[in-house]
Amino acid sequence: MATSKFPPRPIRQALSQGKILSGIGDDCAVLRIGRGRDLLVTTDFSLEGVHFRREWDKAESVGHRSLARGLSDIAAMGGEPIAAFLSLGLPEELSQRWVDRFFDGFVELADRFAVPLAGGDTAQSEDRIVSDVVVIGAVPRGKAILRSGARPGDRIYVTGQLGGAAARLTWLYSKGIGRKIRPPFPDPLPNPRINIGGVLRQKRVATAMIDISDGLSTDLAHICEESGVGAEIFAETVPRATPVGAGSEVDLAFALHGGDDYELLFTAAKTTPVPSVIDRTAVTAIGEITREKKILLVGADQSYKKFEARGWEHFRHFS
Amino acid sequence: MATSKFPPRPIRQALSQGKILSGIGDDCAVLRIGRGRDLLVTTDFSLEGVHFRREWDKAESVGHRSLARGLSDIAAMGGEPIAAFLSLGLPEELSQRWVDRFFDGFVELADRFAVPLAGGDTAQSEDRIVSDVVVIGAVPRGKAILRSGARPGDRIYVTGQLGGAAARLTWLYSKGIGRKIRPPFPDPLPNPRINIGGVLRQKRVATAMIDISDGLSTDLAHICEESGVGAEIFAETVPRATPVGAGSEVDLAFALHGGDDYELLFTAAKTTPVPSVIDRTAVTAIGEITREKKILLVGADQSYKKFEARGWEHFRHFS
Repeated sequence: MATSKFPPRPIRQALSQGKILSGIGDDCAVLRIGRGRDLLVTTDFSLEGVHFRREWDKAESVGHRSLARGLSDIAAMGGEPIAAFLSLGLPEELSQRWVDRFFDGFVELADRFAVPLAGGDTAQSEDRIVSDVVVIGAVPRGKAILRSGARPGDRIYVTGQLGGAAARLTWLYSKGIGRKIRPPFPDPLPNPRINIGGVLRQKRVATAMIDISDGLSTDLAHICEESGVGAEIFAETVPRATPVGAGSEVDLAFALHGGDDYELLFTAAKTTPVPSVIDRTAVTAIGEITREKKILLVGADQSYKKFEARGWEHFRHFS
Repeated sequence: MATSKFPPRPIRQALSQGKILSGIGDDCAVLRIGRGRDLLVTTDFSLEGVHFRREWDKAESVGHRSLARGLSDIAAMGGEPIAAFLSLGLPEELSQRWVDRFFDGFVELADRFAVPLAGGDTAQSEDRIVSDVVVIGAVPRGKAILRSGARPGDRIYVTGQLGGAAARLTWLYSKGIGRKIRPPFPDPLPNPRINIGGVLRQKRVATAMIDISDGLSTDLAHICEESGVGAEIFAETVPRATPVGAGSEVDLAFALHGGDDYELLFTAAKTTPVPSVIDRTAVTAIGEITREKKILLVGADQSYKKFEARGWEHFRHFS
C-alpha cells in the first residue's frame, strides 16, 4: 500500500524534505543521490518480544533504536544516510501516547543526522508491535568499506566501549519477564558512528569495517569469513563500558559477546596511523588479522584460546 | 543486523546479482543505479491475519503477493525495478516447507522481472508471520509519473479487470475464519504492470498514475487529492473481472471498491491517443477528470451520485 497514509501529518510537517524529490503521498519515494555515488540500502526489523519489551523499554528508546540500527549499518560502510523508511504494525490496544513517544525517539535521532523520513507502511498488527526500518545512504562510487578487505597483518580497532547493552539486558532478565521494570541505571542508547565511519573512509584508514550489532565475537567472525583471514584479539585491550551509576566496568564476557552496542569494528594496515580519538570517541586497537583462519583470544597471561562466536543470535529465545 | 544472515544459501546462489555490487554478506547492499536516473523506493508489509491467512492462502501466493505489491508501486511510477529486500519474521513452529514455498513464489516473480533479492533481515516472531518487502527502482531523471499530474479534461483509464481479489476474499469470509479452505476457483495472483507503466512513461501518455491496491474509489481519491481536481466515473465502463470457473462478471461493487487487484489507474490528456491494449492487457477509459473537486459516479441512467472512497482500509478488522 505504499507510502501514502503515513506518517501522520504532524510528523510529515516536522520533517525536512532534503534530498527527497517526492516522498509521502505517492506510490514510491523519489530520491536523487547525485552523480558518482553508489547507493546503500539496509533494512532492520524491531519486533516486540524479540528486540524489545514494552515493560522494559521506553517507547522513545524503541523508536531511537529502530532507526539507530539502520544508521549504524550505513556508518559501517563509511556512508552518508539519505532517507529513512518506517513500516509500523501496531496492535489496536496500543495507546496513541506510546506511538507519539516512539516517533519522538525516532525523529530526534533522524534530525540529528538530517535524515528525512521519506515513507513507509502502516498496518494493524494482531497483538505485537512490529517495525521495519529501511535506511538509504550513499558513498562515493566504489568507496564503500566492505567486510571483505581485511588483510593479514592489519590491526583491529573498535570505537567506544562494549558490553553496556548486554549488561543492562542481563540485569533485566535476572528480574524476570513480564514485570514493568525501570533499572537503576539509564538506558545506554546507541549513537550511530556515522561521522567516524565517514572519517575512516575519507582518510582511507579502514580496510574492512562492520558495526557491532551481534557482539564482537560474532561480528569479527563475519569480517574474517568475508576476508578469508583469521584474527587474534588481546582480551585485556577490549574497552569495556562503565554503566552510569554502576561504578565499575562490565564483565569481560559482555564486552566480548554482547550485542546491540553499535560501535564500529574495523581493520587498518599496520603502517596506517589511526587516531586514538575520532569525533570525541575513543578508538582502541584490540588485536590483529592473521593469515591462519583461526580466531583466537589472547589472555593477560599470554594464553591462547579459541575466540568462539557466541554473540546473540538472530533467533533469540525468551523462555 | 543488516543483510548478513539472509536468505539461506541456496536462495543466495539461485539469485542473479545484476546491478548489485555487494549484497548479502555486508552491512548494506551497494547498488549502482546509473547516471541521470532517479531512485524509487517503496516498502510494503504483509502481516499474517491482516494481509493473508495461512488457512486460505498458499505459501507461494503469499510470497508472490508480498513482492507483487512493491513491484506494482514501481510500475505506478513508470519505473524499472532494480532490487528487492525481504525482511521476514517467522514463528518457531512454522514448517521449513512453508518457508521454502513462500520463497518459490517470491523468487518466481522476482525472476520474471530479473529483480535480484539483495538483502533483508530475519527474526523469529512470536506467533505470526511478518514480512516487509522493499523494492528499489529507477526512472530517468525527473520522469517519474506522480499522482499529482492529473488536469481537468484528462481521461481516466484502468488496466485489466477489477474486483477479482475482493470477490474471492468475500467468498472466503462467507465460509468463516479459521477453517482451512480451498475455493473452487483459482487464486487470481496479481501481475505487476511494470511493462505497461514503462510504456506509458516512455510514450509520455500518462499525466498521473497510481496502482489500485486499496480499491478504485480510494485510489482515485488519492489522485484527485494530490492533483487538486475531481472526477466522473462511468460505472458501466469499469471493467469487471470474470473469475475462472465463475462464469460471470463480479458484482460492480467489487470492481468499484475492492482492493488488491494491482492494476494501474492513470490519466491522459484528452488529445493523447491511448491504445486499447498494451502488453496484451486491456486498457479501458472509465471517466474523466473535472475541475470541480467532487468525485462522482455516473450510472447507466445518467444519474450522478457521490463516488465515496470505500476501499479497504489500512486497518482492516477480521472480527
